[in-house]
Amino acid sequence: MNSDMLGRITRYYRALNRLRSIGLEKVFAHNLADAAGVSAAIVRKDFSLLSIHGQKRGGYEIEELIKKLAQILGKGESENVIIIGCGRIGKALMHYSGFEPDGIRVVAGFDSDPLVYADASNPIPVYPMSRLEEVVEAMNVKVAIITVPENAAADCYSRLVETNIEGILNFTPVTLKSRNVNGSMRPVVHNINIALELEQIFYEIQFLGKED
Amino acid sequence: MNSDMLGRITRYYRALNRLRSIGLEKVFAHNLADAAGVSAAIVRKDFSLLSIHGQKRGGYEIEELIKKLAQILGKGESENVIIIGCGRIGKALMHYSGFEPDGIRVVAGFDSDPLVYADASNPIPVYPMSRLEEVVEAMNVKVAIITVPENAAADCYSRLVETNIEGILNFTPVTLKSRNVNGSMRPVVHNINIALELEQIFYEIQFLGKED
Repeated sequence: MNSDMLGRITRYYRALNRLRSIGLEKVFAHNLADAAGVSAAIVRKDFSLLSIHGQKRGGYEIEELIKKLAQILGKGESENVIIIGCGRIGKALMHYSGFEPDGIRVVAGFDSDPLVYADASNPIPVYPMSRLEEVVEAMNVKVAIITVPENAAADCYSRLVETNIEGILNFTPVTLKSRNVNGSMRPVVHNINIALELEQIFYEIQFLGKED
Repeated sequence: MNSDMLGRITRYYRALNRLRSIGLEKVFAHNLADAAGVSAAIVRKDFSLLSIHGQKRGGYEIEELIKKLAQILGKGESENVIIIGCGRIGKALMHYSGFEPDGIRVVAGFDSDPLVYADASNPIPVYPMSRLEEVVEAMNVKVAIITVPENAAADCYSRLVETNIEGILNFTPVTLKSRNVNGSMRPVVHNINIALELEQIFYEIQFLGKED
């Protein structure tokens, strides 16, 4: 499955959970298409590739779809996440309510500053960096979000690859790269560079028609 | 230029500005390669496509490179940005120092809650939503960041497309889509869905070799 299709599948899955939570039992391809920002034809094509078939008139059973997509997405495993770097962005993500519908749980934060990790107002436990390995193992955490300052990113990354962490979502402007370990690229790294996204938007708007 | 190449060019540009700020005058392809997370061969190929040539021994002149890339990226235009929705993530972005090296300036925030927009501790002016059009015009703003709650995203988007805003960076989990206006897709929209990124990481780590 390529990453575009994976993106759509996770969007369908998310939309289905929401539809179920408001009491719906059936859904049509065009509903999922709207939620995922694609056409209904693409939804039908994705489902046909995954051998998922609806009824001609009634659409798809939401419960059944959720089960099938959960299986495809490997759900049921621990989806515990930690946050390294509890500055403003890290703290905002600790409080972020958008993870819950997807079953993702932010279980702990890490920071090198005692003023941060000893602060009683943190909504989840925040530990000093020295306890990283221990907590990752104890809580069976596989994925970390990095929100440290730019100059701490490389160091933070070196420490994470020494733990059981297998996936990283990196919000620092430093591009972090996986390493080839016995033929597989580890850890899985997704880099989100906010300034870069803005730069690209500024670049693209230059080419919009200027007819108005 | 495709979006991969554009991403690299903006990364080179960003790295060059930082190198200049610490007093360097020359740079080698492999330095930029490290900064952008690619190989030196790719840097050379990009530059050759853009008709940028270095000296055999000395590498590239940083000052000259910055000028050329700035021209390619359309720099010099206003890079004023506004933030719609000044909750935790919006506020974190107001304080984010990572925009400055790229010349991006967050000039104003907007919120529908008087407790937020009347709060004197905001680092930049925060206005009620009713003043959106007026401020966008007065400050010649072309790009907006959306960090409103999920259920306000569609409404916020409808309001933005009625203004002079041409580009949107959307942090809500709702996928926002451009519309075809006289043959060009407007506005330019980049969707960053944090929960979705984590889902994809969880999906991908299932397939890592389990040899250890």
